[in-house]
Amino acid sequence: MQGSKIAIIGAGSLAFSLSMVTDFSLTKSIADSRVVLMDIDPKRLDAVYSLTKRYSQELGSRLQVEKTMDMKEAIRDSNFVINSAFADGYDGLGQMIEEAEKYGYYRGLDATEWNMVNNYTIYTGHKQYQIALGIARTIEEVAPDGWMLEAANPLLEITTMLLRKTKVKVVGFCHGFHAYAGLARVAGIANPDELDFQVVGLNHDVWLTRLKQNNNDLYPVIDEWLRYRAEAFWSSYVLDVWEEQFSRAAADMYRRYGLYPIGDTTRSGPWTYHRDLKTKQKWYGPVGGVDSEIGWTMRLLRNRRNLDRLFRLATNTEVSPLKELPPVKSGEQFADFIDCVTNGAERRLVLNVRNQGALKHIPEDVAVEVPVQMVGDKMTVEPLERLPRTVEKFALIPRWERMEWALEAFDALQEGGAPAYKEALANILMTDARTHSTEQVSSVLDSIMSMPYNRPEKAA
Amino acid sequence: MQGSKIAIIGAGSLAFSLSMVTDFSLTKSIADSRVVLMDIDPKRLDAVYSLTKRYSQELGSRLQVEKTMDMKEAIRDSNFVINSAFADGYDGLGQMIEEAEKYGYYRGLDATEWNMVNNYTIYTGHKQYQIALGIARTIEEVAPDGWMLEAANPLLEITTMLLRKTKVKVVGFCHGFHAYAGLARVAGIANPDELDFQVVGLNHDVWLTRLKQNNNDLYPVIDEWLRYRAEAFWSSYVLDVWEEQFSRAAADMYRRYGLYPIGDTTRSGPWTYHRDLKTKQKWYGPVGGVDSEIGWTMRLLRNRRNLDRLFRLATNTEVSPLKELPPVKSGEQFADFIDCVTNGAERRLVLNVRNQGALKHIPEDVAVEVPVQMVGDKMTVEPLERLPRTVEKFALIPRWERMEWALEAFDALQEGGAPAYKEALANILMTDARTHSTEQVSSVLDSIMSMPYNRPEKAA
Repeated sequence: MQGSKIAIIGAGSLAFSLSMVTDFSLTKSIADSRVVLMDIDPKRLDAVYSLTKRYSQELGSRLQVEKTMDMKEAIRDSNFVINSAFADGYDGLGQMIEEAEKYGYYRGLDATEWNMVNNYTIYTGHKQYQIALGIARTIEEVAPDGWMLEAANPLLEITTMLLRKTKVKVVGFCHGFHAYAGLARVAGIANPDELDFQVVGLNHDVWLTRLKQNNNDLYPVIDEWLRYRAEAFWSSYVLDVWEEQFSRAAADMYRRYGLYPIGDTTRSGPWTYHRDLKTKQKWYGPVGGVDSEIGWTMRLLRNRRNLDRLFRLATNTEVSPLKELPPVKSGEQFADFIDCVTNGAERRLVLNVRNQGALKHIPEDVAVEVPVQMVGDKMTVEPLERLPRTVEKFALIPRWERMEWALEAFDALQEGGAPAYKEALANILMTDARTHSTEQVSSVLDSIMSMPYNRPEKAA
Repeated sequence: MQGSKIAIIGAGSLAFSLSMVTDFSLTKSIADSRVVLMDIDPKRLDAVYSLTKRYSQELGSRLQVEKTMDMKEAIRDSNFVINSAFADGYDGLGQMIEEAEKYGYYRGLDATEWNMVNNYTIYTGHKQYQIALGIARTIEEVAPDGWMLEAANPLLEITTMLLRKTKVKVVGFCHGFHAYAGLARVAGIANPDELDFQVVGLNHDVWLTRLKQNNNDLYPVIDEWLRYRAEAFWSSYVLDVWEEQFSRAAADMYRRYGLYPIGDTTRSGPWTYHRDLKTKQKWYGPVGGVDSEIGWTMRLLRNRRNLDRLFRLATNTEVSPLKELPPVKSGEQFADFIDCVTNGAERRLVLNVRNQGALKHIPEDVAVEVPVQMVGDKMTVEPLERLPRTVEKFALIPRWERMEWALEAFDALQEGGAPAYKEALANILMTDARTHSTEQVSSVLDSIMSMPYNRPEKAA
């Protein structure tokens, strides 16, 4: 039997594509797949092609790796299409944040309650929506039975938009839920990778509804850590970027809302944790979390260092990438999902799928992040533990509301062009805690919308 | 046949009770009713009893007017129970606002997006919720077939809470929708009281979805007024309190959200219209609207003057109240509703009833304000005109969200007492644009919760 065809759109992200190829190679049951890398940047595409092809060959994998700059050809007859495109790039984001801060919008226009992340946009992310919609429309046309595996941010908005606007079988993927194990490790729980856990919510707004070992509830162990040892931990250990899971902010959210926030959730919450650098440092340690101006710079440097290294490996064919990068599974769930669908395997995954009643106060046509039992391509949402009303009302409804605003802004752009888009963004900023006048809103939007990286145009 | 028994709880409000008795007297088909006035303040109860009894006698009405301080007796076997209780009173509200402003919460803790009103509380309104719930429980016990006609604020929260928690047939009443006629008058439309209108939304967040005369759309006439004459109106006419319908703020909301806001809706919107007195004056004229510190003082003075006058009429039995107060129908819909239910009359009313799909993004168990065709006690929600997504997403969802927060705070109080209530209020204030630190939240809540008028106690 011929293996699956898997297209990766936006494959120029070397680290991500290398993870995919590694995972596919190490998952024997799907290692006969054909992987088509697609990107619009020829230099990056050549690099990722060279690197992943040599890597899989060195691994002795049967994986077929190909490349193309033609999206439609990449997608045609694919069984799976992974969207990892990142249109604005960190440069565009950085420029937008810098510009917005001139008008009083600390950390950029898109930083908002329950979405205080700086590495993607929700309101001004029109290019991300346009790309994702373009991919989905192409799947409808040339690979109507294919699955769209959505990896690009903003994941909640994009997955929901595709569920609403297209007929494509779309599933959203995020590895953030794994962070519960790190929390368990810091709290001193043995074998943190073998726990019975349940994480539930909206992407990047997910909560630990269950943590058990041998049927014993482990929340009391976390409570004990918080009571007797966390203060000593916070005063002696300097939290690095991506260690927000162990922060005072996360602990405070747990105290406030009744469940521990998991992964990227801990980067958010209301402005109370994020008002300015000093506030962020109080809650996230000296770095102020990955989304502060310090954390942002540190992340950029690390990304750059890592990218340079991968580029060197990609372009220097004398070196063995396998020697430099030992093969370990990435923790992403794409290979597992593809294995289930392709080979009828059974697995429990945490996926972003249509709500259908899992979260009570959130409409049915919204993508929720929930544990799903897969048997082949059948997906059954696991019965959920009770979610405290405080989490629903104070953390999930506000994030859902902002998703609706973000999708409304994109719809306005699609239907009415740049003026309608500006109007919608203005309506959103009118509710922003950083807004002091209508003039401020109008000028920041004029300024951001005329930046070269960001020209909003009506979709064709 | 014996007439209906109508209980008015919180009847000490002289103006409101007098309106009711006038309306019932002038609606011949229900003028044989028995009206039982109930209040906990004996002085006010005596006054309202004397005034309304003499007034209805002078009108030659068959209405039987009685009084009692016993709520259960008032409600027992009632066909209709009107709740108009106002527990905190203006003195309590005024103290709370003054205290909250010391901590940076301009116009009090409950001023919030789409609820910038100062004459009732939503988050700190626990006494209003407790009273309404007490009345509903009593109806369940001693008048299980009776209707509860909810008039007390916060109407959206109370009506929804009763729909969720009790079996009582509850309907919420507000006269604010009439303001569309004033708008039409100012815009120069002839016969403004004979228009085909539709007003839809959540109470105090309602929007003019239709305005027609002889099947002609009148929105273009409003547009013309805005384009050619409104600026001259605003610069020559000084808006009084309760004239927010004609304000620049209302016009800006129309421009922003796509429909004209009606009645109390125009007092709200995001902080952009309300940040400080100067901002309010820019949008509402020199008074700054009825909710500014100027408008608040003017309203208090007028209330006081009006109350003094009614008290004098009530206590001086030498004077004829009918000579002083010519009998006109109030514009409230209670008498009309009672007539429909009692006599099988047919009428179109604007009522607050269970959503059941009228507003798409709002859950079914929320009270929405919609035009209802009554035939006897059968209520059919009129087919709604299309509601722009902007109104739904930027004006209705945010108000609904705050309603959920308000009800969550009351539930927390009921279940966990004052500490849980404080926690819930803190979670709400964490998202408030006026909050700058966790300490600010904690101190303002300690201060407000220890004020004598406001001691939160768990319900018995």
